[in-house]
Amino acid sequence: MKKFILIPDSFKGTLSSIEICGIMKEEIRKQFTDAEILSIPVADGGEGSVDAYLMAVGGKKINVSVKDPLFKEVNSFYGVIDGGKTAVIEMAAAAGLPLVGDEKDPRMTTTYGVGQLMAHALESGCEKIIMGLGGSSTNDGGCGAAAALGVRFLDKLGRDFIPVGITLKEIDKIDMSGIQERLKTVQILTMCDIDNPLYGETGAAYIFGPQKGATPEIVLELDQGLRHLSKVVYRDMGYEYATIEGTGAAGGMGFGMMVFFGSSLQMGIETVLETVGFNHLLDGADYVFTGEGKIDSQSLRGKVVIGVAKRCKMRHIPLVAIVGQIGEGIEEVYHAGITSVFSINTAPESFELASLKSKENLAVTMDNVLRLIRSAEKIHSSS
Amino acid sequence: MKKFILIPDSFKGTLSSIEICGIMKEEIRKQFTDAEILSIPVADGGEGSVDAYLMAVGGKKINVSVKDPLFKEVNSFYGVIDGGKTAVIEMAAAAGLPLVGDEKDPRMTTTYGVGQLMAHALESGCEKIIMGLGGSSTNDGGCGAAAALGVRFLDKLGRDFIPVGITLKEIDKIDMSGIQERLKTVQILTMCDIDNPLYGETGAAYIFGPQKGATPEIVLELDQGLRHLSKVVYRDMGYEYATIEGTGAAGGMGFGMMVFFGSSLQMGIETVLETVGFNHLLDGADYVFTGEGKIDSQSLRGKVVIGVAKRCKMRHIPLVAIVGQIGEGIEEVYHAGITSVFSINTAPESFELASLKSKENLAVTMDNVLRLIRSAEKIHSSS
Repeated sequence: MKKFILIPDSFKGTLSSIEICGIMKEEIRKQFTDAEILSIPVADGGEGSVDAYLMAVGGKKINVSVKDPLFKEVNSFYGVIDGGKTAVIEMAAAAGLPLVGDEKDPRMTTTYGVGQLMAHALESGCEKIIMGLGGSSTNDGGCGAAAALGVRFLDKLGRDFIPVGITLKEIDKIDMSGIQERLKTVQILTMCDIDNPLYGETGAAYIFGPQKGATPEIVLELDQGLRHLSKVVYRDMGYEYATIEGTGAAGGMGFGMMVFFGSSLQMGIETVLETVGFNHLLDGADYVFTGEGKIDSQSLRGKVVIGVAKRCKMRHIPLVAIVGQIGEGIEEVYHAGITSVFSINTAPESFELASLKSKENLAVTMDNVLRLIRSAEKIHSSS
Repeated sequence: MKKFILIPDSFKGTLSSIEICGIMKEEIRKQFTDAEILSIPVADGGEGSVDAYLMAVGGKKINVSVKDPLFKEVNSFYGVIDGGKTAVIEMAAAAGLPLVGDEKDPRMTTTYGVGQLMAHALESGCEKIIMGLGGSSTNDGGCGAAAALGVRFLDKLGRDFIPVGITLKEIDKIDMSGIQERLKTVQILTMCDIDNPLYGETGAAYIFGPQKGATPEIVLELDQGLRHLSKVVYRDMGYEYATIEGTGAAGGMGFGMMVFFGSSLQMGIETVLETVGFNHLLDGADYVFTGEGKIDSQSLRGKVVIGVAKRCKMRHIPLVAIVGQIGEGIEEVYHAGITSVFSINTAPESFELASLKSKENLAVTMDNVLRLIRSAEKIHSSS
């Protein structure tokens, strides 16, 4: 009996990793009816990350009512896996851009609800929290989440407040004394696939502010707020983290996760591989299938396929990448551990046309790869 | 040592079958350094057919000076294979559209030079002639070629002439008595991949006249000329061939090959497979690679890949098709004997863009198919 592992990234804008796993699995079933198939859709921290984890390792979804980005009540959720020991949270579920609809305004939005999800997980006894960044509507440096977990932010007059983008500059003092006790013992991992620093021209406000609704003037204000936050954090807590890659993720939530909760930031794929116990899953695997929207020399820098490739190479397990596009310089990916790469494009046609049939194209490509594998194995056994 | 057979059709408008063989071979050499590789670029009868045969089975090119389509002397050629016993002629070499440049006029052009090539081959002792139709500038029903080989065409006044498109209607009598003696014993095969009848709305003049320079009025004149020819042939020779599929190929040359030279018409691929002894070549073959511009349910109707597939299926040899485009309804091609199909498109982009890098795209696709084969065989041998 053959064992296949499916661990694709999403094809941004066309297919989610869960959809890709579904299609791949269906095609494998047709060619290898009794195969063992493990699906590990890769979560990047953004929307869909909780579902991806639940599909990969099983678990359940917990529904919680929390504050949305504009401080209104909203039904949100997180996942628990590992027999309830680990919580998986996607911040988009409480602070996501879709939650604000047309009222996009990164000056006013909060991550408070994200902190409430964490609080719920801690109260439920989780010993580990995996936080997914991405898709946020906020620019509060994670202060809202911190406030929900007992951190106090005081202004010049000593008044308590929950900072949002526009009021970060009013923080005069940070008081960590009331922080939720269990945060000190629980392990917190933050999935973060981008490498922007907290502020400056490559920081949270400049790069991601506009898509959250910030005009150029607002971007400047938000950036100054984040600078101010980092100064106060340094003065009151001693951390000088603002230039670390990823601190600028999700409106500075990367920064907040580090300084308030002692979290480390790591690539989503590394977190997934660790969580699912990928090295163990590889035992007895015949083929691993991965994929991403575009494979090229950039793919070697911390993207999904390379994380998977490293491990497959060590174990000499063939790894086939199915991609939306094959870019330049892929010669290197073979050295990295990828056996072969196939693009799903079945015809010379524009992205607009091709994207309409990406499911069919993925299916037909996968089908033909499997047919070739079956045939090649048969050949060898008869020669 | 592995044995590969390459037998692709051209990708119309982008890659010739000779180019495809070259690229495929190069990629195989990289992955299987000591492989035996047989290249059989498929000739469809048109331009390049002689070169394709020479590459497939070896032989030499014979240069001959003949009449071009406008009765001027031109350096032409044909190929001899099979130790000099078989001549391969592409009619485009003496009657091709490129030879008339801007002077396209299917009323005035002749296949006389094609007959001269045949005559040269006969005089050189060839026992078999393979004639490739396609790419012609003519609409003379093959009368020019017949005249070059001793057939006499007489007008009402009993005067000898060499009919061209516009003078077909003046043929009053056909006298076969002076035809080259050896034509009666030599085997003549005509490669013809189209199925148009001699005349009528799907005939030579209507369908191919315009691309040879005919206005709608001229198309009518040419069509009437072909009708007249067919009547005289029936009256004087007893053949009623004008509705046979393929007689309308190359300005009625298909018809002429049948009635004047007793040739049969057959698909280029069938002629190629027969000539190269494909069934023998399959002995010990591990993989066959074929290809075409677009694979779809139409591919099952006499196109290259299906001719190859039938034979591979009988011998249980895996056949991989590399194509420019995967169309609808390919499920059937697997039943026909194709193991798997891969499109060379590496990105979602228009034909205009994709065609600029068709060589690179073919190479990268072939490379990855071979990498997968190598890996799959290794897997099997170690399990």
